[in-house]
Amino acid sequence: MELIKDIDRMRTYIERIEEGKIIGFVPTMGGLHKGHLSLIRKGRGDSDVLVVSIFVNPAQFGPEEDFESYPQDLERDVKLCKQEDVDVVFAPSREEMYPDDYFTFVEVEGYLTSTLEGDSRPGHFRGVTTILTKLFNIVSPDRSYFGEKDYQQVLVVKKLVNELNLDTQIIVLPIVRENDGLALSSRNSYFDEKEREAATILYKSLKKAKEWTIGGEKDPARIIHKMKELIEKEPLAEIDYIAIVGPNSMEKVQSIEGEVLIILAVKIGKVRLIDNMRVKRSMCQS
Amino acid sequence: MELIKDIDRMRTYIERIEEGKIIGFVPTMGGLHKGHLSLIRKGRGDSDVLVVSIFVNPAQFGPEEDFESYPQDLERDVKLCKQEDVDVVFAPSREEMYPDDYFTFVEVEGYLTSTLEGDSRPGHFRGVTTILTKLFNIVSPDRSYFGEKDYQQVLVVKKLVNELNLDTQIIVLPIVRENDGLALSSRNSYFDEKEREAATILYKSLKKAKEWTIGGEKDPARIIHKMKELIEKEPLAEIDYIAIVGPNSMEKVQSIEGEVLIILAVKIGKVRLIDNMRVKRSMCQS
Repeated sequence: MELIKDIDRMRTYIERIEEGKIIGFVPTMGGLHKGHLSLIRKGRGDSDVLVVSIFVNPAQFGPEEDFESYPQDLERDVKLCKQEDVDVVFAPSREEMYPDDYFTFVEVEGYLTSTLEGDSRPGHFRGVTTILTKLFNIVSPDRSYFGEKDYQQVLVVKKLVNELNLDTQIIVLPIVRENDGLALSSRNSYFDEKEREAATILYKSLKKAKEWTIGGEKDPARIIHKMKELIEKEPLAEIDYIAIVGPNSMEKVQSIEGEVLIILAVKIGKVRLIDNMRVKRSMCQS
Repeated sequence: MELIKDIDRMRTYIERIEEGKIIGFVPTMGGLHKGHLSLIRKGRGDSDVLVVSIFVNPAQFGPEEDFESYPQDLERDVKLCKQEDVDVVFAPSREEMYPDDYFTFVEVEGYLTSTLEGDSRPGHFRGVTTILTKLFNIVSPDRSYFGEKDYQQVLVVKKLVNELNLDTQIIVLPIVRENDGLALSSRNSYFDEKEREAATILYKSLKKAKEWTIGGEKDPARIIHKMKELIEKEPLAEIDYIAIVGPNSMEKVQSIEGEVLIILAVKIGKVRLIDNMRVKRSMCQS
């Protein structure tokens, strides 16, 4: 396995790959966990050459967010990638990706990036789409792998790739959860024992919401209200948003028919978590 | 020669090119003139496969500008490209490049895109950098050719390519002029005889400015003042801006030392023209 830190060397590596070979790409911010590993394993199986990038992207953090403390342990991440038979870890420095006097940004505008995460984290998606455009241009992947925990991000990335005519296929894999349902996240490493226990409230509320829906509740407002009541019983939890939306549009639904996405952001102590679940009424009743 | 109108076919054409072959690219808005032809000829000599795009990009026109009337004659342009032994003319429709619900834009922010043309034409460079990112992604050119008449655009495009890690080399060719000095532009076709004659005032004023500089004038304010006086004698001319700037920074110089760029935008009747000239004092005096 190669560890590459500069753009020119990464490009040269890519240029030397024989024509017709499939390049798979898993972009990450490091702090690798089982969610990332599911992407890496799928990518490994699909690709001739598998590239994992590790770059904590300052452009996608707000000024009040956890950029400075975001978990970073390159040595551990590199070791994990080796174990998974990754071909290249691309881990550029901040100066390599954003030199002084950097001024170019890519933005998906409109509703999709201004609702929910876009509303709570202004500039976040602009940071994501900028770094991904750069990484796609450097790595030239045939396929790129993303996890469904960042559900809205996946829709934004698909729109980015489609509209800028980027030539990579976006592969989306399901959320990986701990045994108690907590969605894997690098930010889970911030928690003490009490907070870790409290963090399960996101999954619990989603599961309950699914039950209520399947039980016949069609009114999203009532489901959101009951989710709020449940989450507010947890003293460490502070709700940012809960929404029931169309799984492609992210627009709030008036009534639950067919498939919807239930999505939420909740702070547990100082740590902001997101989670989501697709619910299909027609699976269980007419 | 092939005329390709859709993105997928263009991509397939590019994918089928043998590895190692050099792809040259001349992006245009059509209305081909001798300036474009100089780019096409240089590109033809340098490349195994030469692609010329023809697309009048609505995103780079302001609401009060001449998008609707911009000269378009695809048949004539295609014929010219055939004569120049171009391999592909890529001429997508507006819907192909900007489908309904299109929301992704690329922007080089900061001083470079907010001064001069950026100041006079808000959103113009954002339109340019967006369409070029899309075209570069579709055509994957090794080399892309631009004319120095759009001097500020060239700097913006170089910054775009560098900062988004686009993998194309930007080749810049000098302004092509008519016998009387008028810089070639698709917009010259708008002129009646009187306006056409008046339009030479841009070049005349640049040539005079060069003479004054070489004659020892080091004060940009005095040169600009004298250029204004000269241009204002032409009743059809209305100055938008005249500036003397550093040729890489586009920042106004306080005193003319070494090489500077004299750059101006002037309306002749309803038609807005730009032109520029590099002047190097040290060529002629110490």
